Formats: sequence, structure tokens, C-alpha cells
Amino acid sequence: MAGAEWKSLEECLEKHLPLPDLQEVKRVLYGKELRKLDLPREAFEAASREDFELQGYAFEAAEEQLRRPRIVHVGLVQNRIPLPANAPVAEQVSALHRRIKAIVEVAAMCGVNIICFQEAWKKLPWTEFAESAEDGPTTRFCQKLAKNHDMVVVSPILERDSEHGDVLWNTAVVISNSGAVLGKTRKNHIPRVGDFNESTYYMEGNLGHPVFQTQFGRIAVNICYGRHHPLNWLMYSINGAEIIFNPSATIGALSESLWPIEARNAAIANHCFTCAINRVGTEHFPNEFTSGDGKKAHQDFGYFYGSSYVAAPDSSRTPGLSRSRDGLLVAKLDLNLCQQVNDVWNFKMTGRYEMYARELAEAVKSNYSPTIVKE
Amino acid sequence: MAGAEWKSLEECLEKHLPLPDLQEVKRVLYGKELRKLDLPREAFEAASREDFELQGYAFEAAEEQLRRPRIVHVGLVQNRIPLPANAPVAEQVSALHRRIKAIVEVAAMCGVNIICFQEAWKKLPWTEFAESAEDGPTTRFCQKLAKNHDMVVVSPILERDSEHGDVLWNTAVVISNSGAVLGKTRKNHIPRVGDFNESTYYMEGNLGHPVFQTQFGRIAVNICYGRHHPLNWLMYSINGAEIIFNPSATIGALSESLWPIEARNAAIANHCFTCAINRVGTEHFPNEFTSGDGKKAHQDFGYFYGSSYVAAPDSSRTPGLSRSRDGLLVAKLDLNLCQQVNDVWNFKMTGRYEMYARELAEAVKSNYSPTIVKE
Repeated sequence: MAGAEWKSLEECLEKHLPLPDLQEVKRVLYGKELRKLDLPREAFEAASREDFELQGYAFEAAEEQLRRPRIVHVGLVQNRIPLPANAPVAEQVSALHRRIKAIVEVAAMCGVNIICFQEAWKKLPWTEFAESAEDGPTTRFCQKLAKNHDMVVVSPILERDSEHGDVLWNTAVVISNSGAVLGKTRKNHIPRVGDFNESTYYMEGNLGHPVFQTQFGRIAVNICYGRHHPLNWLMYSINGAEIIFNPSATIGALSESLWPIEARNAAIANHCFTCAINRVGTEHFPNEFTSGDGKKAHQDFGYFYGSSYVAAPDSSRTPGLSRSRDGLLVAKLDLNLCQQVNDVWNFKMTGRYEMYARELAEAVKSNYSPTIVKE
Repeated sequence: MAGAEWKSLEECLEKHLPLPDLQEVKRVLYGKELRKLDLPREAFEAASREDFELQGYAFEAAEEQLRRPRIVHVGLVQNRIPLPANAPVAEQVSALHRRIKAIVEVAAMCGVNIICFQEAWKKLPWTEFAESAEDGPTTRFCQKLAKNHDMVVVSPILERDSEHGDVLWNTAVVISNSGAVLGKTRKNHIPRVGDFNESTYYMEGNLGHPVFQTQFGRIAVNICYGRHHPLNWLMYSINGAEIIFNPSATIGALSESLWPIEARNAAIANHCFTCAINRVGTEHFPNEFTSGDGKKAHQDFGYFYGSSYVAAPDSSRTPGLSRSRDGLLVAKLDLNLCQQVNDVWNFKMTGRYEMYARELAEAVKSNYSPTIVKE
């Protein structure tokens, strides 16, 4: 298996396939081809100076008679940790804030209205990184960014909840473009998978499936492992989300062949946009760890493969960002597409949710007997 | 857009990509590479003589201490209608039976244990094709096949239910390898999409989500449009299905970029195998029809793009059969893989179905007010 140096699927296909075949491959793999956004030269220059990738694509919708296009520019940020994992916590946080500030400034040049960072963008579970969602230093930092750039900021953090026994949560704070904290949402499904021992850090979220009404559209945040749960996406969608962000931190050996499937299936199944964001790089920890899975004790998870992308309700998607470089992906969405696709495919209308509410309620009973037909 | 003559994604990639890149592309797109099955030469010769494609692949699982491998060979059949859609109904049915018989004989040479045909394999809605699920001529025909070849047969038909007012259903009959009718299952979600005016032919299925215990494993059938509904897959899986067949009839312009995503996402999300089967060819009808969607009246749906494939719980999948030729795809599965992947990813354990049963029950109430956070 190639490591992180293999740049991306898209680059490989572009390089080797003759044009007519490339078009067919893209159609089957990615739906209709998207127009590249004409981003400002100064943005590309700044991205090059700061050494991160910048890409932009536009999703279009049909013209309507009664509604004007509902255009929103989203920004997806993927990055490695700037300092080693054993640097002092305060220095790591400052370095991350500086890095994110530089990327957000480029996003602002590109007209981004809503930006989302990767999961727990301040780093993997480490309790000293945890802070208040409402007025911790990272939220205050993001509030300034939001106000300065008139931008909604989705900031996934480790939350310490001092009003409830100091427990930790895996949380995303949503900050309005006014600079006010609009609210927060918590990770609903906690992995119990290999090295991701997150269940020793926090519990399943207790805030349900809130959707945030921003000036630019209704958004929700399905954090990381929640992307494997179709019901999680569904409930955000039922509550009205037009864009669902999926800030993640996931590694190549474990999930790379699931990555192009899940967020995209969610966009299709729920007639909404989804934004899949993964970090990059390999993080080394001072203490060895193991998961009792037969592997030797080790000091890293393997590499996070980036590949952040946006998927649309009509099954089209952007290419992925690089597998190894920091990057900003800008996507111009016309939210009218959600209803337009809904009106063609009608998955909500034909969803039979009453039947499933009933069947699920039965299925979770301890004396449930599955419907199995035998000869 | 190329038509049906563009053979397949996989053929194109194999032809143009250098080997190391091809391996990476396959890893990202298809998960781990599958071994080709060593099928008997007489099977290839018969397939060639009968002019259909034959492919075979093996999915492997890890060895276990307490369970032996649970090997099953499944067969997926895709075919065009042998006679034009305006030929006499009885002749069309006979021609289809002959065609299917020839393909099933090759499947038997390949050791297939469970075979599934495409949706309503006797043809698109046309009431004279409807027959009894329990003892109609097609069920009797399939019972013979099943008994002769010691093979479970999944036969999706148009059912006429004479015990309930002669209503029509879109049904799959499951026939045991003993030749007995094991039972039937009905299409739970009926499309209201473009030219697929199926809601004028039949209603949503009323049999819930039955799973059939066969000698070779527990199977279920999610018919066609039900593949767009993650809850439909989920309930079959909750009831214990290890293999879910998805017999379909869907066309290129509408759904080709959804096709590689949905059944595969279902295999991943539910720790089971899924078998996506689509027909091939273009079918011309004597009477023009239209769907009020701005298109001129027309006599065909466009082409059915085949591309039948099997997806596994570990996110690997077979290549697709051709986009235009009749074909038989044989896959050797080790059903132990389902539990092995379950024990790594734990999506059922972390699924929180009680919460969703409650939330869905609320959401369907007419006075439901979605959780929307506003500034």
C-alpha cells in the first residue's frame, strides 16, 4: 500500500486517462462535472506562500420562477498539527490558532460564508486541550474570526462542561457571522474501534440533532464516526439541514475506501449537501499505546489521509483535497438544488418513517424476535 | 454522454493506468483487491456460446478458532428482454424462461448456491405478466430450477394477489434449494420518479422486512427503489440478513452515478453483503408515454446500464458486470466476514436505535417542530 505520498485519486486519473474516457469515468464516479471556481489570484498567492492547497468548485441548480438562487460559499479546512504532539499544550494551541487564522484569511478572500474545521481541530483527545464551548479561548478566537470576516464558523473542539461535573464532550461550536455563539452540538456516536479509544474520553452526545439557522442557510454537524450511521444524517435532514458538515479524523488503513462512499450516500439519501473533512499528517505521541489487537505497541495512528470533499444531493461531488497537504476547499452551492432533487427523487415523501419508528421501537426491545422465515 | 457502448469503468481503468497507480486507484475505489475465481472452462464456453458475460470473484475472511468458514456462492443475473416489448406476452415469457434457464445452468456449473434475477425479471409493469407468487407459472418454473440444481432462487416478479381483490404487487419469491416456496417479500418503497410511474401499478409492500433462513445463510431482498432508503437496508439487517439482494431496473441518465454508492454504503453500514443487480438494454414500447417533465413523448426509458456488483461489509466490492451485455456474476462469500467486521466497527452496538425510534416517532407527528437553533 502506498503511503501518504500518493497525492490523490483525481490527479492520477487526470494524468493517465484520455479525455473521452476521463469524462465517462468522472460521470460514473462523480456525477456531472463541476465548474472550477474562478478564485482571486491573491488567494492563490497567499495559499502558496502559506504552503497549503486551495481548490474551488461550483455546484449549480436550475433557475426557478419564484425563488432566486440561494448561493452560499462553504470552506473546508484540513491541516496537520503544526507542532509535535509533545510540545507544550499552550504552544500547540497558539500555533494552531495562527495556522487557522492564515487559512481563514484566504477563505475570506474567496468569499467564504461558512467555514468548518476538522474534528477536534485543536488535537486528538488530551484533557488539557478541553475548554468551555461558550467562552473558552478557542471559541473567543473563532468569534473574532467570524465577526472580522462576516463568516459563520464551525469549530469542533474538546469541550469541558463545568456546569455538569466537568465532563468532557466531543463538541462542535457554531458561531454566527455576527460573532455570537449560535449554539453547540455533540458527537452522537462514539467509536469503539482499534486505536480510537474515544469511549474512555467522552460519552455519546445528549443534544439530539439540532440544526442551526444561519444567514446563509440551515446547517448541522455530524461529527466523525457519526458518518457511519445513516440514521444520524437522516435526523439532521429531517430537522431541516441543507448542509451537513462532517469534521473527521480518520486514517488510511482503517477507512480510506469507506471515505468516498458514506458522506456522499448521505447527500443522496437526504437531498442535502454534505462536507466531509479529514485531517492530514502523522502524529507521534510520547507514550506508546496499543489496542490489544495483536499489533505491537506504537506511537502513532498511521497517517490521516485528508481527501476532504463536498457532495451534492444530485450525486455530484468535488474532487478531494490532497491526501497529505494542508488545504482549503471552497465550494459554491446553490441551496435550491436540495428541493429540486427532492422533487425529482422524493425520498422523504416515500420514506415511510412511521413504519420504521414502529419497527425500530420493537426491534430494541429485549424480547424482540426478528422476522425470520424458515422452511 | 457516451451511451451503452462504453463497456465499463473497470475495463477503462485496467487499460490505461500503470500498475502501481491502478493498485492505488483500486484500493481507494474498491477496498482490498479480490481474487478472481477459478471457474470451470465449460462454464466459460457455455457462456460464450450463449453470448453472455461470466465473471467470478472471491471475498475472503480471517480464519477463526471456533467457527469454520461459512462459504456461499451467489449468482447475480443481468439480462435484456429477449423479445421486443410488443411481442405476445406468452412468447415473451417463454423466451425469458429459456434465457434464464441457460444462464442458471452455467451458474450450476460454477457451484452457485443462491441465485437472484433482476427486478420483475419477466418485464416492466404490464398487468398480463402478473401471476401468483405461490403457484404461478414462473414460480413453478423456478421451483424446477431450484430443485434440479440444489440452488436457492430469488425470483422478483409482478404478483397478482387473488386472495386480496386481485391487487398487484412488486414481489420477490424466495424458493428453497429443496424446491419449496420459502416465502415472499414485497417492494417497500415505490418510486414516484420521472417515467417510472410504478405508483399507478402497485402499492408499498405490506410484509415488513422478512429475512429468509436458507441452508446457505440468511438472505433478504430489497427491491429496486428501496436501495435509496437506508432504513430499509437497516431493518433487513436488524432482522439478521447476511446477504441483501437488490434486484433493480434503472437507467443511465437517472441514476448511474448513484449506483456504485448506495448498495455499497448499505454493506458498510450494516456489516453485511449486498448484491446490486440491474438489467441491460433499451426497451421500446408500442405506445408513447410522457411524464409531464418537459420531455417529448417517447417510446423508451433510455438504456438500462447493467453494472451489477457485489459489495462486502469491509467496503471491498467486485467490479461491475458490463454496462450493455447479459451477464452472470458469481461471488464466493465467507459469511464469517459479517461478524468479523461487526466486531471491529461496531455500528450496531453504537447505533443508538432507541433514540432514533423515539425521534422518528416524534418527527412524523403532524405538529412536530424540528429542532432549529436561531440567533
